[in-house]
Amino acid sequence: MVPKATTKRIPLYFRYLKTLHEAGVKRIKSNEFSKMIQIPSATIRRDFSHFGELGRSGYGYDVPYLIEVFSDILKTDIEKRIALVGAGNLGKALIKNNFRRDTNLNIVAAFDTNPELIGEKINGITVKNMSELKSIVKKEGITTVIMTVPSSKAQQVIDQVVDAGVTAILNFAPKRLKVPSHVQVQYIDLTTELQTLIYYDENYNHANVDLI
Amino acid sequence: MVPKATTKRIPLYFRYLKTLHEAGVKRIKSNEFSKMIQIPSATIRRDFSHFGELGRSGYGYDVPYLIEVFSDILKTDIEKRIALVGAGNLGKALIKNNFRRDTNLNIVAAFDTNPELIGEKINGITVKNMSELKSIVKKEGITTVIMTVPSSKAQQVIDQVVDAGVTAILNFAPKRLKVPSHVQVQYIDLTTELQTLIYYDENYNHANVDLI
Repeated sequence: MVPKATTKRIPLYFRYLKTLHEAGVKRIKSNEFSKMIQIPSATIRRDFSHFGELGRSGYGYDVPYLIEVFSDILKTDIEKRIALVGAGNLGKALIKNNFRRDTNLNIVAAFDTNPELIGEKINGITVKNMSELKSIVKKEGITTVIMTVPSSKAQQVIDQVVDAGVTAILNFAPKRLKVPSHVQVQYIDLTTELQTLIYYDENYNHANVDLI
Repeated sequence: MVPKATTKRIPLYFRYLKTLHEAGVKRIKSNEFSKMIQIPSATIRRDFSHFGELGRSGYGYDVPYLIEVFSDILKTDIEKRIALVGAGNLGKALIKNNFRRDTNLNIVAAFDTNPELIGEKINGITVKNMSELKSIVKKEGITTVIMTVPSSKAQQVIDQVVDAGVTAILNFAPKRLKVPSHVQVQYIDLTTELQTLIYYDENYNHANVDLI
């Protein structure tokens, strides 16, 4: 049984390991990782020990292998029922794809305010009016919302989502939104990802360029 | 004029600042940031000084403000011509949205191998056969490719993209691909983002929980 305290740190470990991997780092020692994420190296070693023999003394930890282990841990064991808010182009694509890679992630409802979209059926899901969000969230046991709405409407929409009792929100817009402290928001910003990529491409010649 | 060496570090600063911001960190001192990203604090202070008065002595740097400044720097000043490979649901949605937030990012061509998709017109762009990729990349001055293809085909497709002379690739699949060292690949993994969000939601009670 993995302690709750360890459990809490897994997404943090996972994020930093992915950043390291993207920078071309193949292995890391616990004291180096400790400096980077500001968690004591003894804590890191104890945490990692719960997941088997991940490292070797003097060699450090294998970054791609750790990513694989933590990625498996993050997979959900029970079904997560998801509502999508904003049934535009991107919203429709997400409903159609429906996270096939993890069969426990299921979009079960979709909402919009546009009368032209309300009533449309996408991959078996009928787009409902936002006014029905709160009652459907309750009835369907929805725990998570994906928001694919314009930035200008995002704060207003997230207020409704929070009011409906949802505490986990994946938001496809860059603008940081105000939510109560018990609500988790994950931001995905495709434009910035593309800008960063192009910037790297134009300013680097090699993948593993020395940053210092 | 910002030195090239500083320029190279901007995407790295930007990424870590976004991670800090998502963890609820509002300000950071250069020596703390130095430990985290393993770049000397004198280098960080010198780099940041090129962008005006970003910090105050004893207070540190304002994280949201730094994010804003670096986000502006990452914006492209001249048009980037982009090809999309894989005109399925997600690909079509990206062509329709076409990165409206940055008017210099333009998807100008789309490719697929599926005969049912080839010839289809989306937002003014006709889907072409992959066999035409290399010649169209040259003719259209395309510098960047967005790949929205299944993981199982990703390596084969990226080989063709690299062969066509493209050096910047945004890939919507989690599996790490093999590319020559002069090619930059940025990965976007929506399933893992959602898994991480749900994991946080289930294991945290507050946004700024103590991680140690």
